Amino acid sequence: MKLTIERAALLRALAHVQSVVERRNTIPILSNLLMRAENGEISLAATDMDIEIVETVPAEVLRAGTTTVPAHTLYDIVRKLRDGSQVQLETDGLKGTLTLRSSRSTFTLATLPAEDFPALSGGELPHRFSVAADALRRLVDRSRFAISTEETRYYLNGIYLHAAQSSDLPVLRAVATDGHRLARVEMPLPEGAQGMPGVIVPRKTVNELRKLIEEVGAPVGIGVSEAKIRFSFEGATLTSKLIDGSFPEYERVIPQQNDKVMDVPRQPFFEAVDRVSTITSDKARAVKLHIAPKGLVLSATSADTGTAQEEVEVTYSAAPIEIGFNARYLLDILQQIEGDDARFAMADAGSPTLVQDSQDASALYVLMPMRV
Amino acid sequence: MKLTIERAALLRALAHVQSVVERRNTIPILSNLLMRAENGEISLAATDMDIEIVETVPAEVLRAGTTTVPAHTLYDIVRKLRDGSQVQLETDGLKGTLTLRSSRSTFTLATLPAEDFPALSGGELPHRFSVAADALRRLVDRSRFAISTEETRYYLNGIYLHAAQSSDLPVLRAVATDGHRLARVEMPLPEGAQGMPGVIVPRKTVNELRKLIEEVGAPVGIGVSEAKIRFSFEGATLTSKLIDGSFPEYERVIPQQNDKVMDVPRQPFFEAVDRVSTITSDKARAVKLHIAPKGLVLSATSADTGTAQEEVEVTYSAAPIEIGFNARYLLDILQQIEGDDARFAMADAGSPTLVQDSQDASALYVLMPMRV
Repeated sequence: MKLTIERAALLRALAHVQSVVERRNTIPILSNLLMRAENGEISLAATDMDIEIVETVPAEVLRAGTTTVPAHTLYDIVRKLRDGSQVQLETDGLKGTLTLRSSRSTFTLATLPAEDFPALSGGELPHRFSVAADALRRLVDRSRFAISTEETRYYLNGIYLHAAQSSDLPVLRAVATDGHRLARVEMPLPEGAQGMPGVIVPRKTVNELRKLIEEVGAPVGIGVSEAKIRFSFEGATLTSKLIDGSFPEYERVIPQQNDKVMDVPRQPFFEAVDRVSTITSDKARAVKLHIAPKGLVLSATSADTGTAQEEVEVTYSAAPIEIGFNARYLLDILQQIEGDDARFAMADAGSPTLVQDSQDASALYVLMPMRV
Repeated sequence: MKLTIERAALLRALAHVQSVVERRNTIPILSNLLMRAENGEISLAATDMDIEIVETVPAEVLRAGTTTVPAHTLYDIVRKLRDGSQVQLETDGLKGTLTLRSSRSTFTLATLPAEDFPALSGGELPHRFSVAADALRRLVDRSRFAISTEETRYYLNGIYLHAAQSSDLPVLRAVATDGHRLARVEMPLPEGAQGMPGVIVPRKTVNELRKLIEEVGAPVGIGVSEAKIRFSFEGATLTSKLIDGSFPEYERVIPQQNDKVMDVPRQPFFEAVDRVSTITSDKARAVKLHIAPKGLVLSATSADTGTAQEEVEVTYSAAPIEIGFNARYLLDILQQIEGDDARFAMADAGSPTLVQDSQDASALYVLMPMRV
C-alpha cells in the first residue's frame, strides 16, 4: 500500500473512526483500524465487535493494499501535523510496518495483518428507509437523556426505535426510559419503514451516531434487521448490533387521564428550578411545586444549609396541588423543550406526570414524582 | 445586618473568596465565609487556616452587622441569579439565619456565629514593597510549572521568593524546582524589598494569587515577614502562611560551563517535540535529540507502537551530541519562552542542560536529561 492524502481529509475520517475504538483492549487488533487503499480512495474501519464505523476518503493511491495500525496513535499523530500538509502512507510488508511521512516528520508504526481484522458487517438488512438528518438528530437528542445506565436492566440501555400508530397516523418512534422518566419522540413514518421490527439501539451507538449526524445535511440511510442496524452517510457507515431484549410496554406508564394542567414559561421555570435546587445536597435533589391558580411556588429544603423559595407565573385552573420532583430530571426534560411554554399534566402527588411542549405534541415526557 | 448589593459586584467578590474554601471540611465554620457590613461596604472573608482572602465591595448597608454563611452555596446561588439583579441580604439573629432576596427568589441560609470564625491575619509584615501586576504575573507564570507535587519534599511545594544579586544588580527572584527541572525568574528588586527574608510561597497560594492578578492592572502591594506573606489589591487582600522549611541551594545545580550551545526556533521545535512524543507511551515520554551542525534530529521509540523522527533546523557549531529529555518537561519549558528562539546550553548527555530565551536572560531553566 502506498498513497498520498490531504491531512484535513484524513483527520476528519480518523476522528470518526477512532472514536469507536476502546482505550483498553485485551485483543490487540481491536486497538487497530483497518486501512484499505484502492481505486483512488482509502477506507478506514474500526470496530469494538458491537459497532463498526467505515469511512472512505479520496486519496492518491500509488499502490493498492490493506493493513491495520494503532487507531489512537495514528489519530494523535495526524492531529498534530500541520494544517494544510500532505501525508504519505506506505507499508513495508517484510517488516510489517506502515511509514507515515509528512513534511520533515517520519513515523513508523507496527501493523497487524488485515486478515485478522474482525468483520462485523455481514447479514441482510431487509428494512431500508431514509430520514432527514435534522429529524434523526431530533429523535436522538430528545430521547437519549432518558437512557438507563443501570446495567442489570440492559434492555433499557438504549433507544427503542420502532414503527407505531399515533392518532391513526403511522410514525417512527424513539423511546427511552430509566424507570424514573421516559421520553417518547416521533416523526412521520418514512417510506420503507413499514413492517420494521422494534429495535433497541445501544447507547454507545446512539452517541457515535450523534457525532456523525452533527456534520451532515443530506438524508441518512437506515437499514434494519432483527439483529443489526446500519446508518449510511455520504462516505461513512455505522453498523451496530442491537440490544437483544424486550423493551417494556411503555404505553402503559403514559398517563391518559391527568386533568390538572399547568402551562409554564419554560425559560423562567428552568432558571427557577436551577436556583432553588442549589440549596439541596447532591444526593436528594428534591424540589417541591405548590401549584394553584394564583401561581406556582417552588421550594426546596436542606437540613444542613437552609431553605429556598421562588414564585413563577403559570396558567392553571384546577384544584391546588403539591408535588415533588428530582430537580435534575426536571431540568433534563425542560432542556428538551424548544417552545416558549411547557405543559404539565398531573393527577396527584404520587402518580406519573406528563410533560410536553405546549405547542408541539410530537415529543412527550413522563416524570415520576418524588415524595417531599 | 441588612444590605442591598448589585449581583455582579457580589458575584465577583464571592468568586475570589470562595475559591480558598475547601470542599470538605471537618471544622464546619471553615465551609463558611465571614460577612461584615458597615459604612457603605461589605467585606467577605474566607480561610482554610493557611490562606485568607478578604474582599470589600460597596453596598447599601441598612443595618451594620456580621455573620458567617456556607461559602459555596452562597456563591452558587448568586451565580444563578439573573444578571443585572439586586440582592438583599438580611440576618435574623434569633433564628440564626441569613435571608437572601432577589426578584422573586428567597433563600434562607443557616449561619454560624462570626465570633467563631478563625482570624489569620495577625502579625507584623515588616518588609513592604509593590510590584507591577504584569511583572508579578510573569514571575508566577514562568516558575510555577516547576513546583514539586511530592509531599515528602514539602519545602519544594512552592515558589521560593527572595532578593538576590544578578550580574551585580539587585533582583527579586522566583525559583521553583521538582528535582527534574528548575525555573529561575527575576525582575529588578522593588524599592523596600531589600533585606526581605527568602520565603517559600505554597502552591495553593500561588494559584489563588494568579487568579487575583488576572483581573487587575494596578500595582500589587506585597508585605512579607518570616512566617507570612500578604498580597494587596484594590479591594482585596490575600494573606498566606509560608512553607516552614529551607529551600535548597539551587545555584549549585545551575551549570556555568555548558559550552555546547544550540539556538532553535521555539514554535517549530515545540510542535516537533509534541509530534514525535506521540509515539511514546504515557509513562516514559522520552525523546532523543541528535544535535549536529547540520541540524537537529528528534526521535522517539516505543516497543509497542513504532518509531518517530523529525528534523529541525538549528544553529549549532559544537561537537555533535546525543541527549534525551522527558518530552512533557521539554514542552513545559518551551511554553514559558516568549521569543522566537530558545537557547539550549549542554555539557553532555548526563549533565543538567540550561535553557533560556535567546533574547531574554531574565528567566532561566535547568532540565535534567534522561537516559535514552
